[in-house]
Amino acid sequence: MEALREKIRQEGEVVSSSILKVDSFLNHQIDAGFMMEIGREFAHRFQDEKITKVVTIEASGIAPALTAAAVLGVPVVFAKKTKATTMDTEVYVEQVESFTRGTTYDIKVSKKFLHKEDRVLIIDDFLAYGHAALGLAKIVKKSGAQLVGVGAVIEKGFQSGGELLRGQGIRVESLAIVERMEEKEIIFK
Amino acid sequence: MEALREKIRQEGEVVSSSILKVDSFLNHQIDAGFMMEIGREFAHRFQDEKITKVVTIEASGIAPALTAAAVLGVPVVFAKKTKATTMDTEVYVEQVESFTRGTTYDIKVSKKFLHKEDRVLIIDDFLAYGHAALGLAKIVKKSGAQLVGVGAVIEKGFQSGGELLRGQGIRVESLAIVERMEEKEIIFK
Repeated sequence: MEALREKIRQEGEVVSSSILKVDSFLNHQIDAGFMMEIGREFAHRFQDEKITKVVTIEASGIAPALTAAAVLGVPVVFAKKTKATTMDTEVYVEQVESFTRGTTYDIKVSKKFLHKEDRVLIIDDFLAYGHAALGLAKIVKKSGAQLVGVGAVIEKGFQSGGELLRGQGIRVESLAIVERMEEKEIIFK
Repeated sequence: MEALREKIRQEGEVVSSSILKVDSFLNHQIDAGFMMEIGREFAHRFQDEKITKVVTIEASGIAPALTAAAVLGVPVVFAKKTKATTMDTEVYVEQVESFTRGTTYDIKVSKKFLHKEDRVLIIDDFLAYGHAALGLAKIVKKSGAQLVGVGAVIEKGFQSGGELLRGQGIRVESLAIVERMEEKEIIFK
C-alpha cells in the first residue's frame, strides 16, 4: 500500500535499527481518515474469504480492525490484556511475549464471541516476532473457528513473525513490509 | 439515541445495581456498523464546535472516538495507561481511579499531539464517576487547548460523573443515560 509506505517515510521515527515509532498516525495519535483507507484495503484483500469476525488485541489493533470490520460488515472482538471485574470468567487464554515492553502478558477472549462456525481474520498494527498473532491464532483454534488469515498494518520483515506464520500455512497480508531501518532511512520490501 | 437504548435493553447485562456489561457491542466485541452510527451521532451533536482533535483513553474509548473523528475529519489521540519503551518521555500525566478495576493508574498523552490551538472533544465509552474524563480534561487544560465538550456512549446517571463535569461548565453529551438498574430492567432517563 504505497500511501502507507509514504506515510511511514514521512512520519515514522527510527528509534533504533529494530524499533519504528509511528505514534503520529497509528499507535498514539490515529489519523482517522487514513485508518478508514487501511480498513478498506484489508477488506479488499480478504473480500472473497467470507469472513464473519475480525479479531485483534487492545489497544493499537482496535483502529485498523474496526475499520476493516465496518467495511466487511462483521463485528470485531478485541482480546483483553488484563482481567477486569466485569469480564466474563468463561474465556480462552493465551500467554504472549511483548517485544516493545519486554514483558509477558495474558490475552483473553470470551467464549461467547468465538464459535466454530466463525471465519476469522486477525488484524494487528505491527507484525514483529508474531507472538501476539500466534496467541490469537491459538485462541481461534481452541474455539474451533476457521482462521482465514492475518492482516498487519506494518510488518517488520527483518523479524521472524511473518516467516513463522507463513511457515504454518497462514495467509499473511501486510500493508507495508519494512526490510530494514538505517539511521535516517526506512527501506521497504 | 433510541437505537442505542434499544441495543442496551436487548444486549446489556445487569451484573449488579451499579455494573452494566455491554461486552457484545462496545467493551469486548464491537458492533462495527453500529459504532459508525455512534460516531455520526457524536459528530452531529458537536458539528458547530470547530473541533480539531478527539481525545480518548485506551482501550474501549478508541472505537467511538475513532468513528466520531472520521466523520469530523480530525485525528484521535488515545491516552495510554502504561508506559511503553517506544513512548515519548515528553508527556502530560494524570492519575485516574478505575471504578471497574478498583485501582489507580496513570494516563499519559504526548505533548506532541496537543497544542494550544486545538479545540478538543473528549469521547469515552462510559461516564460513571467521571475520573477518566476529568483526568483527560486536566491534560487538555495543561496543554493550553480548549475543551469543547465530553461525549459518552453510556452515562450512569446514578453516579456522580455527569453532575461533576456539568457543574464545572463542561458540555456533556451522553448518547444513553441509565437512571437506575434493577434485576432484569434498565431504566433510562
